[in-house]
Amino acid sequence: MLQRVLSEIRIAGFGGQGVILAAAVIGKAQAIFQGGYATMTQSFGPEARGGSSSAQVILSGEPILYPYVTHPDVLVVMSQEAYTRFAPQLKSGGTLITERDLVRVDHIPHGVRAYGVPATRLAEELGRKVVLNIVMVGFFGAVTKLVDAEALRKAVADSVPPALEKLNLQAFDKGFEYGSLLMDRIAESGEAEEVLSLESA
Amino acid sequence: MLQRVLSEIRIAGFGGQGVILAAAVIGKAQAIFQGGYATMTQSFGPEARGGSSSAQVILSGEPILYPYVTHPDVLVVMSQEAYTRFAPQLKSGGTLITERDLVRVDHIPHGVRAYGVPATRLAEELGRKVVLNIVMVGFFGAVTKLVDAEALRKAVADSVPPALEKLNLQAFDKGFEYGSLLMDRIAESGEAEEVLSLESA
Repeated sequence: MLQRVLSEIRIAGFGGQGVILAAAVIGKAQAIFQGGYATMTQSFGPEARGGSSSAQVILSGEPILYPYVTHPDVLVVMSQEAYTRFAPQLKSGGTLITERDLVRVDHIPHGVRAYGVPATRLAEELGRKVVLNIVMVGFFGAVTKLVDAEALRKAVADSVPPALEKLNLQAFDKGFEYGSLLMDRIAESGEAEEVLSLESA
Repeated sequence: MLQRVLSEIRIAGFGGQGVILAAAVIGKAQAIFQGGYATMTQSFGPEARGGSSSAQVILSGEPILYPYVTHPDVLVVMSQEAYTRFAPQLKSGGTLITERDLVRVDHIPHGVRAYGVPATRLAEELGRKVVLNIVMVGFFGAVTKLVDAEALRKAVADSVPPALEKLNLQAFDKGFEYGSLLMDRIAESGEAEEVLSLESA
């Protein structure tokens, strides 16, 4: 189902983790496979030097007039540096999604829900650590429900070379399943003021 | 040398041609390797359906406040559809860069300079058609001189997996050399009101 409310998402990590591809997949899913609108913006400036990477995606049911994200509704972080830098900007009531083995969360702002996934480890189970970004996209889909799983899967297939499609879809499914199971557990046991992940929930 | 004047660039083609990567390379070259600023924006909307892909890059010596490109200074097109759609938006005095075997230019707007490169063929000479986007980036560098070749080369190396670095740098060099030779020829023989390319210059 197309979400019509405007949602701002920031994805951040190291260079080389596939931050831009993850952002592009989410944008495509919304716009091309779900009939909505999306923009992706990447700013390269002094802050981009030193190996960090950050991309912003806005999802909307209407054309988007201003593409910059200042206070995201959802922050997806794959490095400690990205967490430290961007977590204070998260909107109150927002959602923090972390790669749980790469990011230690020292303080969850009031009203923010935090969810962690061992994306690197799940990617390594597929033999290719490089697909951790797509594991994160799957987890994002299950946790936020902002974009339908089927639209996200089609966008993954549409965004990678044919030879890597199967691997990337497996990565997506692993992240999505981990997230779905986590949300089921939370529904049973209630929220807690900590990073929620299958091992800690 | 860092260009301080704001330049707006649009790159457009089919999905799968690597439009976003080409845009990201140019943005990174300016901001990370040349000390300037850049933004990349991609809008996914109804116009993105049907396999076309377009990315916008703004280069500046100063932080960029508004990242949308409306009338680009430089338009790089890798498909006929992209040419038809975006050529009318090119700024007067702007530069049109085409993949000459994929785009037939029927009318060059007054004051626009047009340059063509057989990027697909040059990429095929390296055995991998998929690097045509990086051939285009090399040609873009030689023709526009908006970003230094060395900064572009570093950005190419920084943007591709290590295993593909050599191939992509060769692709960059092929495009850059083709463009440099073309600009030398034009300096000798003068501009003409046609798409300038080595075979036609």
